[in-house]
Amino acid sequence: LAEPRAGERLSRAAAHRLSLYLRVLAAWPADAGKISSGRIAEACGNLGQRGLGYKAADLAAAIRAALGIDRTWRALLVGVGNLARALLRYRGFRAQGFEIVALFDNDESKIGQNIEGLTVESIAALAERLPALGAELAVLTVPAESAHAVAEILVDAGIKGILNFAPVLLKVPTRVKLVTVDLAIQLEQLAFLIQLGDPEPRDEGVP
Amino acid sequence: LAEPRAGERLSRAAAHRLSLYLRVLAAWPADAGKISSGRIAEACGNLGQRGLGYKAADLAAAIRAALGIDRTWRALLVGVGNLARALLRYRGFRAQGFEIVALFDNDESKIGQNIEGLTVESIAALAERLPALGAELAVLTVPAESAHAVAEILVDAGIKGILNFAPVLLKVPTRVKLVTVDLAIQLEQLAFLIQLGDPEPRDEGVP
Repeated sequence: LAEPRAGERLSRAAAHRLSLYLRVLAAWPADAGKISSGRIAEACGNLGQRGLGYKAADLAAAIRAALGIDRTWRALLVGVGNLARALLRYRGFRAQGFEIVALFDNDESKIGQNIEGLTVESIAALAERLPALGAELAVLTVPAESAHAVAEILVDAGIKGILNFAPVLLKVPTRVKLVTVDLAIQLEQLAFLIQLGDPEPRDEGVP
Repeated sequence: LAEPRAGERLSRAAAHRLSLYLRVLAAWPADAGKISSGRIAEACGNLGQRGLGYKAADLAAAIRAALGIDRTWRALLVGVGNLARALLRYRGFRAQGFEIVALFDNDESKIGQNIEGLTVESIAALAERLPALGAELAVLTVPAESAHAVAEILVDAGIKGILNFAPVLLKVPTRVKLVTVDLAIQLEQLAFLIQLGDPEPRDEGVP
């Protein structure tokens, strides 16, 4: 697997497929020998191009480089409710090189609380704290009605990317990257598949 | 907008796009008159085909029919942790016609607890309870290590679709539909977009 050359572009769909391959490779036993692309495709539930075998670790390293996750990304978590607590305990983030380095909320009763080793700070202090924290990403888990205002604070503070869980379509400048997770859309996709009825290739996860 | 005829198929990508349109239509003021497809596309952050105006309510109804959500879907929530509590309070599900009708867990200390008006039941009772509950979907929020075993229970009980939040690639028979939400993949997509650098069309949500 050649690493992408400078100037070469992956599509978002290709990047998503690579993320799924990484999951398969992570689960591949170290002593199980080489993994074929056919086997990866099968494990991902998709028909892919069959080819030669790869060493799982080599392939994973090449994919991580292509995705830009061959490094650690530091992230803020903004909005400390049940979802934030679930995300803090979610082992997948750290395993993939994402580290939650600070928690912010605007609820006085939450500020100062210690959760999973981090102290909740005031959103009012966010802009001032960002340089010292060295975070480029923010995970936004505030209620829908606060999402626009908090996103604006994050943008003004210089954050590079926002993973938004609030069920709103945020507007941010083009220099800030935005991925929105709309949980109801996931359920709609499932309902749509059931309604469709006949079997189709297995789940390929969520791009 | 013609309703899809029997035998006509939407792709999953098209279904996802329709889900996003629904979000825009839901936010459209009732007194704001007709909505143009160009305006919908703009609000979704994508360039779409420009055309004639639609009445927002008519368009939403046609889209809901195409997606199979012009009805209520009853769903089980299996695995009662922080994520489940967040999902129970997530207003988006009910707004889109999804109703969580029962909670299941295998932790004795949780069984019998009342959460948001529902009593946590034992997973051991799930198969027996399913017909009376009339649920077709299950939202799976158990830890990764329990996911395969619980999915098997759901499949054997006759569930039609599973929305899986556990960070594992589940195997289910083709008659059961599966959508997996891998939260680390969302962060990887964001990292990939930041690494990509130059501006591209705004976030179009998560297919």
